[in-house]
Amino acid sequence: MPLHVKILGSNSASFAHNRHHTSQLLQIQDQYFLIDCGEGTQMQFKRYGIKFSKIDHIFISHLHGDHYYGLIGLLSTMHLYGRVKPLILVGPPGLIEIISVQLRYSETHLNFPIEYIEWVPNEYQLIFENEKLTVHTLPLDHRVPCSGYLFKEKPKKRRLNKVFLPDRLPPNEIQLLKNGEDVYDDQGKLRYANAEVTLPPNRQLSYAFCSDTKYKPGLLNWISQTDLLYHEATFMEDMRERAENTFHTTASQAAQLALDAGVGRLLIGHFSTRYKNLDPVLREATSVFKPTSLAVEGQVFTINDHGEHG
Amino acid sequence: MPLHVKILGSNSASFAHNRHHTSQLLQIQDQYFLIDCGEGTQMQFKRYGIKFSKIDHIFISHLHGDHYYGLIGLLSTMHLYGRVKPLILVGPPGLIEIISVQLRYSETHLNFPIEYIEWVPNEYQLIFENEKLTVHTLPLDHRVPCSGYLFKEKPKKRRLNKVFLPDRLPPNEIQLLKNGEDVYDDQGKLRYANAEVTLPPNRQLSYAFCSDTKYKPGLLNWISQTDLLYHEATFMEDMRERAENTFHTTASQAAQLALDAGVGRLLIGHFSTRYKNLDPVLREATSVFKPTSLAVEGQVFTINDHGEHG
Repeated sequence: MPLHVKILGSNSASFAHNRHHTSQLLQIQDQYFLIDCGEGTQMQFKRYGIKFSKIDHIFISHLHGDHYYGLIGLLSTMHLYGRVKPLILVGPPGLIEIISVQLRYSETHLNFPIEYIEWVPNEYQLIFENEKLTVHTLPLDHRVPCSGYLFKEKPKKRRLNKVFLPDRLPPNEIQLLKNGEDVYDDQGKLRYANAEVTLPPNRQLSYAFCSDTKYKPGLLNWISQTDLLYHEATFMEDMRERAENTFHTTASQAAQLALDAGVGRLLIGHFSTRYKNLDPVLREATSVFKPTSLAVEGQVFTINDHGEHG
Repeated sequence: MPLHVKILGSNSASFAHNRHHTSQLLQIQDQYFLIDCGEGTQMQFKRYGIKFSKIDHIFISHLHGDHYYGLIGLLSTMHLYGRVKPLILVGPPGLIEIISVQLRYSETHLNFPIEYIEWVPNEYQLIFENEKLTVHTLPLDHRVPCSGYLFKEKPKKRRLNKVFLPDRLPPNEIQLLKNGEDVYDDQGKLRYANAEVTLPPNRQLSYAFCSDTKYKPGLLNWISQTDLLYHEATFMEDMRERAENTFHTTASQAAQLALDAGVGRLLIGHFSTRYKNLDPVLREATSVFKPTSLAVEGQVFTINDHGEHG
């Protein structure tokens, strides 16, 4: 099952050149995760025909407005659309206070519960887990508490090699084989040797989202071999000093990190408004790390779980 | 000098049919007033080529999200764009707390001062005044504290009838004539009789903005003879009960109010998402009050101050 990242916005600071603020929709193991939610994200949902009901998890990286000002509007619209199922919201200290004060003054009682998971700044934490995947925070180096997120699929089961198996197999035998066990008949005689009738599991896919950070080589500890890395690249190398002073990264630095970490593919975004044409930004990155793409809104990036890095 | 209202959005509740949330730009006496600021208003500024720096006054009607969720983003962008001149913000109790908590967590200290003028719910108040105009609150009947606003030009000066005057007139004589006084020479002899060389002042224009309210005939006390009335018309008459229960107005009721108040012209807006096609909404209103228009975003409505209702 492939992993998809749809870009809903990737401009930094202010809306410009028809580029919206940061927001992405990650589809992994058929679950949808909204990552960051700049102003206008709910309009982007409409534009791209995404159903609000698909979203059960929202992750916010930090409390600069270009990463979360669209959240309260999205929650309000989910409420208006009749949502009752719970929503898991992951984010920094303060976010729930900001939402609460706004709901209080509008006298709105959401029809659906929000389970708020608040991370601890500057820690690498297992912040979310279900049967299919884990999510860790990635402590970033920004002006305010800021975390990226590392999404990683859990180990997958072995695949049946149907060439060597009958068309219909009892469910318990399927489970045994997928779990890597041999199957015996009632008399204890080997019916299927696992190694002969199964194929190795598909790869565990991983996606790292690193928004808004000073170049931080320490991230290598956690994002090594990630299939897909999104990393901010607010500036180009000729503005490296400004990048450092504002706790941002250059395209070249983002690419160097991707190279050092041996990731499969790099997406860069959070572009400064000064770059109307993004080609030079992309060229700077690809000169260091070739498999780099611009996180252009509306585009979908797909990683497959069979074969090598997609 | 004409009065202009540019509609930036007029959909109720949720963004739909490419219609944005409530926001309007009023230009009166060459001053710009932003009235309400739904999510995405800053994007609408960009779309319509409006400079952020033009806005020195923002008026918010109430704390339902579709009327103010775009405010914090707009203020943040003004800050990023280097604004230093003060901004006057008028609104309900709670608004400044909502803004403050968001600025606090983003560790943002705006480079410009906000003078916050908070109104008292359910009172008709003179809430703002300068040398050219006054603004009163219009207490509305909604689920949360909600005020419309009545903008009214101050009395204007008499106009010079250049046919009966020399091309060049000393500034002090111009002022005397504009103020309705006669002009005498040094010997005390009448030089110009005001009534002979001046024309009556242009009309004082007025604009009433009534967002989100149950049909409230009591508004007549304040909006009588207004040149231009914007009034919400969330529903049509067949949904009158729902309009009442949700503290909204029907198109027919809004038109009746306009008729009873003898206003010059009516704009209706805050359309329910159920009306993709707005023609029936307009027909319902015009059958009661003919000079009604739909507050369609992107459109500008102009009222002239010479002659009769424009």
